[in-house]
Amino acid sequence: MHSDIKKIDRQMKFIIEIDKLKSVFRQSLLTDGSRHENDAEHSWHLCMLAITLEEYAWKGTDILKCIKMLLIHDIVEIYAGDTYLYDEEGNKDKEEREKKSAEKIYGILDDIQKKEFMDLWIEFDNGKTKEAIFANILDRVQPIMLNYLTEGKMWIKNKISREQVLDKAWRVFEFAHTDISLYIMRIIEESVDKGYLLP
Amino acid sequence: MHSDIKKIDRQMKFIIEIDKLKSVFRQSLLTDGSRHENDAEHSWHLCMLAITLEEYAWKGTDILKCIKMLLIHDIVEIYAGDTYLYDEEGNKDKEEREKKSAEKIYGILDDIQKKEFMDLWIEFDNGKTKEAIFANILDRVQPIMLNYLTEGKMWIKNKISREQVLDKAWRVFEFAHTDISLYIMRIIEESVDKGYLLP
Repeated sequence: MHSDIKKIDRQMKFIIEIDKLKSVFRQSLLTDGSRHENDAEHSWHLCMLAITLEEYAWKGTDILKCIKMLLIHDIVEIYAGDTYLYDEEGNKDKEEREKKSAEKIYGILDDIQKKEFMDLWIEFDNGKTKEAIFANILDRVQPIMLNYLTEGKMWIKNKISREQVLDKAWRVFEFAHTDISLYIMRIIEESVDKGYLLP
Repeated sequence: MHSDIKKIDRQMKFIIEIDKLKSVFRQSLLTDGSRHENDAEHSWHLCMLAITLEEYAWKGTDILKCIKMLLIHDIVEIYAGDTYLYDEEGNKDKEEREKKSAEKIYGILDDIQKKEFMDLWIEFDNGKTKEAIFANILDRVQPIMLNYLTEGKMWIKNKISREQVLDKAWRVFEFAHTDISLYIMRIIEESVDKGYLLP
């Protein structure tokens, strides 16, 4: 398909198109509370968690693959938008919206590279492999930290409870290294004590 | 030093502190021209270039190491600020300012991890190894693309010439794969034709 288009031109077009991820805003606030975080800087932050906390991943975890997942995991939101983790309604058609978006954005690339990125995204979303589990853990850990540091402003606004956070972050407590899960549990309990989260 | 502080607490403190990179703004504008780009999303974008253009790196380039460099290469700017590539005055004491900043930010971590990140940053800055060369190439390629796509607004504002761009991006023309260097050369020549760059 479209074999007349030079590979580098497709790749550069893709690189330009994904610049839009910098304008997809999330619910989380920056630690200084000044504004909402966007998906591009969120993805960078998760990769920083991955290389800083690498030692806590399961033995044999391919960190490069994990980082690739984290780099691309939110790219589908360029057309599908960010769906708040606790938005039950929005999460109903999330899969369909994101699949269409993935076809569109990764379709800029040639079929081989498109498949490579699609496969990474699907693997992340399924959350079954070592790499996907570690990536998903970090994707839960970071927003909890941001929420805690901004005095639970967005949790309070959205009336989020301790149970909801524990429910969505289940991989942190089932699969993460104890040092990480204990740290996050402490933050959650403190958040309840301080009124950032509903008990 | 400080061996009484738990490792995970140091690491989480570091992860929280680097959130500030999202508030360090660069000269480049987003492709839609809506605002300046910050260092965190810039770093994400460079990592995306790395995984999209991986095939053009020299044979034997360790892409994970290259990505780690790109993730951390601007972190020193948290305390040192962004120094515009073409700001001759600001670049005079850049090294000293950034070295102090590196000591401060990586000093949050234990000595082993501090050294690991410092070494990566120094290797990137020296630009001699395969990984550092590829990372430096991408760090020049991306702003040229953003400048071109925003009709050279920041180049025009800062009276930047074709020669200055070629001079700062010398690694792109000496070391990058022909497909990349030709693409960038075409953009630069078009930028001169369109009046985005001084001839």
